[in-house]
Amino acid sequence: LSSFKIAVIPGDGIGQEVMPEGLKIIELAANSVGITLELMQLDWACADYYLAHGVMLPEDWKKQLDGVDAIYFGAVGWPEVVPDHISLWDSLLQFRREFDQYINLRPVRTFAGVPFPLAGKAPGDIQYSIVRENTEGEYSSVGGVMFANTDREVVVQQSVFTRHGADRVLKYAYELAASSAPDSRRLTVATKSNGMAISMPWWDERAKAMSNNYPDVVWDKQHIDILCARLVLQPERFDVIVATNLFGDILSDLGPATTGTIGIAPSANLNPERVFPSLFEPVHGSAPDIAGKGIANPVGMIWSGAMMLDFLTQGDSRGRQAHDVILKAIEMVLANGPRTPDLGGDASTKEMGDAIAALV
Amino acid sequence: LSSFKIAVIPGDGIGQEVMPEGLKIIELAANSVGITLELMQLDWACADYYLAHGVMLPEDWKKQLDGVDAIYFGAVGWPEVVPDHISLWDSLLQFRREFDQYINLRPVRTFAGVPFPLAGKAPGDIQYSIVRENTEGEYSSVGGVMFANTDREVVVQQSVFTRHGADRVLKYAYELAASSAPDSRRLTVATKSNGMAISMPWWDERAKAMSNNYPDVVWDKQHIDILCARLVLQPERFDVIVATNLFGDILSDLGPATTGTIGIAPSANLNPERVFPSLFEPVHGSAPDIAGKGIANPVGMIWSGAMMLDFLTQGDSRGRQAHDVILKAIEMVLANGPRTPDLGGDASTKEMGDAIAALV
Ligand SMILES: CC(C)[C@H](C(=O)O)[C@@H](O)C(=O)O
Ligand SMILES: CC(C)[C@H](C(=O)O)[C@@H](O)C(=O)O
Repeated sequence: LSSFKIAVIPGDGIGQEVMPEGLKIIELAANSVGITLELMQLDWACADYYLAHGVMLPEDWKKQLDGVDAIYFGAVGWPEVVPDHISLWDSLLQFRREFDQYINLRPVRTFAGVPFPLAGKAPGDIQYSIVRENTEGEYSSVGGVMFANTDREVVVQQSVFTRHGADRVLKYAYELAASSAPDSRRLTVATKSNGMAISMPWWDERAKAMSNNYPDVVWDKQHIDILCARLVLQPERFDVIVATNLFGDILSDLGPATTGTIGIAPSANLNPERVFPSLFEPVHGSAPDIAGKGIANPVGMIWSGAMMLDFLTQGDSRGRQAHDVILKAIEMVLANGPRTPDLGGDASTKEMGDAIAALV
Repeated sequence: LSSFKIAVIPGDGIGQEVMPEGLKIIELAANSVGITLELMQLDWACADYYLAHGVMLPEDWKKQLDGVDAIYFGAVGWPEVVPDHISLWDSLLQFRREFDQYINLRPVRTFAGVPFPLAGKAPGDIQYSIVRENTEGEYSSVGGVMFANTDREVVVQQSVFTRHGADRVLKYAYELAASSAPDSRRLTVATKSNGMAISMPWWDERAKAMSNNYPDVVWDKQHIDILCARLVLQPERFDVIVATNLFGDILSDLGPATTGTIGIAPSANLNPERVFPSLFEPVHGSAPDIAGKGIANPVGMIWSGAMMLDFLTQGDSRGRQAHDVILKAIEMVLANGPRTPDLGGDASTKEMGDAIAALV
């Protein structure tokens, strides 16, 4: 296959600003290896679509995405206009669930030129991947309020875990660890079995059962509280971390923070079987506080695009090649500038994007 | 009141090792201000009591604790012998719930002499208090397994929040912020209303409702993922953070990690109405990996004891005075040594405890 159809959803806030940079660069890289991208622009966001229609997505959104190979997604959210739980549940989280993007893969690493805040650590100490369950668990829509608006008000929300859901994300994580270099075959399972005494001991059991299939992987489980502490104090201990939806969410903002900025962090929401389109988005959100200034760091968006090219052509070296060319260009611009303000520079989003594009 | 009855539960692992240092120092400080402590030693832990009786606590534990003013608690947990979810639920978490210790107060600060891992930050940048809800929320015992041991296995666990429970912890946190120095009256409410769309938007509403009573407090809410990132990147932004049970647990390991070690972090599990005894314990756990070596940092235990003296005599300056004397001694020993290995020194637990005791 040499041509892929991509749905492009810039979204809100800085999503609008980083998307053009991402597109510019993935098109260049794709063309250079003989891949054609057919882009379908969609205005499904708070700012445009919701304001006009009162909902986040058109009713026939699935039909409109029929035949799409991947979704390239900026960021959704504009809390002044649409409460976050509506804008996110009816957009990003809906894609993740209904397209069964059950893996959220989030690499964490340092780059030369990006000062990272951990004193006493070497840049190479921070290099791991977070594999986050992306469809179930704590992000459930089951629950409700009783005795509403009275002193007796009670709110329950269920976390729902399935063996199907746990086993497939654990398997993916063990596979990733097993296929790493021999000295990087460590897997850490995030848990909280001492406090969440129903779901988490069960999760630990599933991890243990899966470990039997991967004798080469050295695994352990760590409670989420101390695990967060260790991402700061001993990041060199980690190669692959697998976590539930909520814990993966937390770890994958914290990890990038230890590399200096979450502006560079990418993520891939994968349906590994390719039955549904996968979705690629930066870890940062719409960032209303800096939106409109043209100073957002475009690297998370661009790197996510590189992951998209790699995933799309799996089994075909061209996607890998396009990915690597982009990463190399990102590395060089992070090292030598121009850099956006979050990295201590004064470049605009576009200047940084142009510099990366020039190297691709 | 000049005499208080304290239940002493050293517990497992390093709990056994740090407790004698804590006791030595709080007795000295208490005596110096004319307070008498009547200590009741209890062996309720995995290592002793569980091995002998097959349960964590005697059936009449409440009766045995009748008339006790506070519980001084080391750490419980010995996962090789008792699964964590049993040892903790039937001990520490049971005390918190049944004694309605609904506030878990965890101060976070740096000390001269303790190198902290955040490059580019000044020691004074990290100084805030975490107020954690301590009885409900995500730590519930409601839920179960369906289709057990089959491919269709489903596990649900409910988070249960009550208006009663949310409002009282929010109130405590707003009061704490309101009574701080004028330039430290900021309150951050940890949330995750974009992902946990039933319970957390409700929690945000309760926070907003409470804020109306505290016009002097500048408050905001932050999603737990970005909040964790900011404890690393911008700790100077925080004065008081209020959080649900699980989020408070995570933040209060991460916060101390940014100060260099969780070995120094204290906590107070408070029943502010004093209907039931409150419980004071270091944030670190039983740490099986370093137990038995006599190298555990005793500061978390000692500082927790200082918080206990302060709380016991509230409204009486002697407790405050005893607290301050201990804190001053901790500060001096952290600055000048001797220090335990987690602080880069080679002192034993006892040597460090003795040094602090000598200054009290
Ligand atoms: C041991 C564990 C159950 C406990 C908790 O999660 O509350 C601990 O981590 C803490 O922070 O006090
Ligand atoms: C925006 C929000 C719902 C989302 C999440 O919690 O999953 C984001 O934080 C992320 O990590 O992708």
